[in-house]
Amino acid sequence: MARPPRRARGAEGASLALSVDRGSATPLHMQISAQLRAFVLAGRVAPGARLPSTRALAAELGVARSTAVLAAEQLAAEGYVEGRAGAGLFVSTRLPEPSCPAPPPRRPPPPPATSPPPAPWRPFAVGALDPELFPHEAWARLLQRGWRAHGGALLHRPDPFGWAPLRAAIARHLGEWRGIDCDPGCVVVTAGMADATALVAACGFPRGTRVVVEDPGYGAIAEELLRSGLRPVPVRVDAGGLDAARIAATPAARGARGAFVAPARQHPLGGAMPVDRRLALLAWARRVEGLVVEDEYDSEYRYAGAPLPALTSLDRDGRVAHAGSFSKVLGRSLRLGYLVLPPALVDAARAHLRERPAAASIVAQPALAEFVASGDFAAHVRRTRRIYARRLEALLDAGGAWRGLLDIEPTDSGLHVVVRFGPRMPAGIDDREVAAAALQAGIVAQPLSASHARPPRRRGLLLGFAGFPEEALAAAMRGLGRAAEELARRGGRRRSA
Amino acid sequence: MARPPRRARGAEGASLALSVDRGSATPLHMQISAQLRAFVLAGRVAPGARLPSTRALAAELGVARSTAVLAAEQLAAEGYVEGRAGAGLFVSTRLPEPSCPAPPPRRPPPPPATSPPPAPWRPFAVGALDPELFPHEAWARLLQRGWRAHGGALLHRPDPFGWAPLRAAIARHLGEWRGIDCDPGCVVVTAGMADATALVAACGFPRGTRVVVEDPGYGAIAEELLRSGLRPVPVRVDAGGLDAARIAATPAARGARGAFVAPARQHPLGGAMPVDRRLALLAWARRVEGLVVEDEYDSEYRYAGAPLPALTSLDRDGRVAHAGSFSKVLGRSLRLGYLVLPPALVDAARAHLRERPAAASIVAQPALAEFVASGDFAAHVRRTRRIYARRLEALLDAGGAWRGLLDIEPTDSGLHVVVRFGPRMPAGIDDREVAAAALQAGIVAQPLSASHARPPRRRGLLLGFAGFPEEALAAAMRGLGRAAEELARRGGRRRSA
Repeated sequence: MARPPRRARGAEGASLALSVDRGSATPLHMQISAQLRAFVLAGRVAPGARLPSTRALAAELGVARSTAVLAAEQLAAEGYVEGRAGAGLFVSTRLPEPSCPAPPPRRPPPPPATSPPPAPWRPFAVGALDPELFPHEAWARLLQRGWRAHGGALLHRPDPFGWAPLRAAIARHLGEWRGIDCDPGCVVVTAGMADATALVAACGFPRGTRVVVEDPGYGAIAEELLRSGLRPVPVRVDAGGLDAARIAATPAARGARGAFVAPARQHPLGGAMPVDRRLALLAWARRVEGLVVEDEYDSEYRYAGAPLPALTSLDRDGRVAHAGSFSKVLGRSLRLGYLVLPPALVDAARAHLRERPAAASIVAQPALAEFVASGDFAAHVRRTRRIYARRLEALLDAGGAWRGLLDIEPTDSGLHVVVRFGPRMPAGIDDREVAAAALQAGIVAQPLSASHARPPRRRGLLLGFAGFPEEALAAAMRGLGRAAEELARRGGRRRSA
Repeated sequence: MARPPRRARGAEGASLALSVDRGSATPLHMQISAQLRAFVLAGRVAPGARLPSTRALAAELGVARSTAVLAAEQLAAEGYVEGRAGAGLFVSTRLPEPSCPAPPPRRPPPPPATSPPPAPWRPFAVGALDPELFPHEAWARLLQRGWRAHGGALLHRPDPFGWAPLRAAIARHLGEWRGIDCDPGCVVVTAGMADATALVAACGFPRGTRVVVEDPGYGAIAEELLRSGLRPVPVRVDAGGLDAARIAATPAARGARGAFVAPARQHPLGGAMPVDRRLALLAWARRVEGLVVEDEYDSEYRYAGAPLPALTSLDRDGRVAHAGSFSKVLGRSLRLGYLVLPPALVDAARAHLRERPAAASIVAQPALAEFVASGDFAAHVRRTRRIYARRLEALLDAGGAWRGLLDIEPTDSGLHVVVRFGPRMPAGIDDREVAAAALQAGIVAQPLSASHARPPRRRGLLLGFAGFPEEALAAAMRGLGRAAEELARRGGRRRSA
């Protein structure tokens, strides 16, 4: 690698045109080293070339000798120059030949025409919240108060299961709202469902285990199971969720020892799992000595009747883990959820989390603990529930005009509705086509087919209603209906042509 | 499945011993449905049994008929009961036979004796910060102010790349401190190095690509690459970090198209990568048309000379991604870091993040933006740098007494030192033995061998010094020295026996 040193002609100070700016905040020695570095990288002085001595540099630039020495030492530490006793400074001979001057600045490419830049939510974005309804002032105060009271403890190694008062508040909340009798010691604060899935995967199943997921379902679960080295097996479900008999009838699910389900409200179909299926699922878990993970993402929002108690509240054998989230109440960008572990998995989860940082940020945990424990969380849920109920009604009303083309399935819970295509919609029209036509009109509608892992993929649309005022929902429904009608007309012509 | 309905003897109201508590906050109809549910689950009324009529229930309990109807409707919705026209309410025949009464509450097992409960950090925990040094009051105020000013925007769908003002502040900071000229459009706010690794893995490499990681190195990177479907290949490094010539000499690395390196300060060995290796690594990336990921985790802490500019600042071909973190300054429980993408990967990263929530919580991003942009971050780094320099000196001083047994490698950067075993330490003593003996004395010392992916695993200890006052470091060094000496004496006897 080493080449014989060459003497650079004219490489003494003057020809390198160094200068210093005494008004700059950058120390003089760093100004000098930066310029020399740039000269070397730009090939203005070749490997092996002699650089000005520190004495010459100092005289040339009118700086102290010690300043020039600092600059030279810095470059030597970085490997740009080598000192030879009595012979001065030389550009390192171990540098490859430079190719071109300073690298270009990093600029992002112009945004592609197909992807609009992130914008405020538009109807019917699923998962959208209405920022107007959030108690911003109270939350801001809780954030400040939480850090002021506990900042030192928060910076100290926190419990990898999360902030203890938040875990206690979650346990109490689950007891009151979901019928789950659990000790805070079984509660882990997570960064959301993907994080909860990864934790259960790591401590609940051997690598390669087959785990049943609902089809259609929440795709992020299967994705995270795959990342964790497990084998997700989609099993077809209806609005009542997973039927244990279906597992037995699915050849790919043979040997499965786990299942992820959303019994409170199947995603995206929106039904609640009846109690006979719940008990059958628990019996299945007992039989295969497996584990069921209950995913509750919006059980707070039920507009008629009381919410069903959690599947976990029926679990007598420690075979159900319960994953919940604050994202439907506080926004998904908060990135906080929880996982209630069966007692038998607590030690394994601690061992797993001991060596790695928990994925959940600590910053908002004291504020959230206070928000839940004080009852403000429950009050916020009750208040928004009334408002969302009116919004749901407004959407159902507006949807009535398009019956036979777009049929909204009745629901009394959740934050979105499912639209099925009626007899007036030609069979050849794909739900992605309808979604694309809606987007042209500025309306977001998620195709139902995209929630399916395998065919047959049922056609339909998911319409989120929680984040938008009633007039906006009615206007968007009109826009969606017109776009669908136009498409149906052309689709009909296409078929008859 | 369905069995013929049986008439339950004595299943009318009175024998079920229902009651209501008018003083309770729980609505009456929920009290009734909860008791009936419990009776069904406990087997007190069998599948198919007739339940009291709503009229009988209302009379028995002295509640309005509508209350009893609400309770019955709730149980019907849950699948516990079935109504038959004119025949009253029956326990669903689709329920399996109940097995036992209410599930036991979830209690965690008692903590195992081998794992101490989470406690405040003790010397020499690597990654520990000193909570006393943190500007808690200012940070608490920034949290409140950030949410107050931007709460609505934060709940709205935020840019999956992160809060724009924070990305701008990071870009400016990197320009000033690390010589990286980048547009905020290339900056992604991440939840830390694992998150950054997952993002680069998803948008920078096809599945199955071989990617070089440093050995010894930061194990979480290899783990996350595996989770992402890539093939991490450990390549042996020294304190100067990865040598591109070593990649060519490692058969398992044939075909590798990526490399994760920590040029500012190799982890855990603690050296800086000299510029010739940096340029050679860039040349390698060009040759294989690959991508280098620069992991900077504590470049802020350099106690002599200026920090070397980032490897990314030498990148002329858009072949380096730069991952940084706030965890060494603000604590790792904050879970915020950043990734500067080469422009060519920006669109792929946007496409990847569009469909999933970003892993980084939004809550602290406005506060952090303000903290960085205001110069408070830089002031905090400068202040703690002076303090950490004194702590490092105190540790090196205290370590002098154990030379020949425990040799601390000199360093002028970072937050931990590396201890090598000297000639007085018998060859048969494992570094994990020394770490275990130290833990007995209440001292945390991380074995160096644990950072190696493959043998030979060099013996040594990592001692974090940043989080602890000088006296605590000196005392812990004495305790560690004595523990090591005792072990060496017994180890010597073991050999001579």
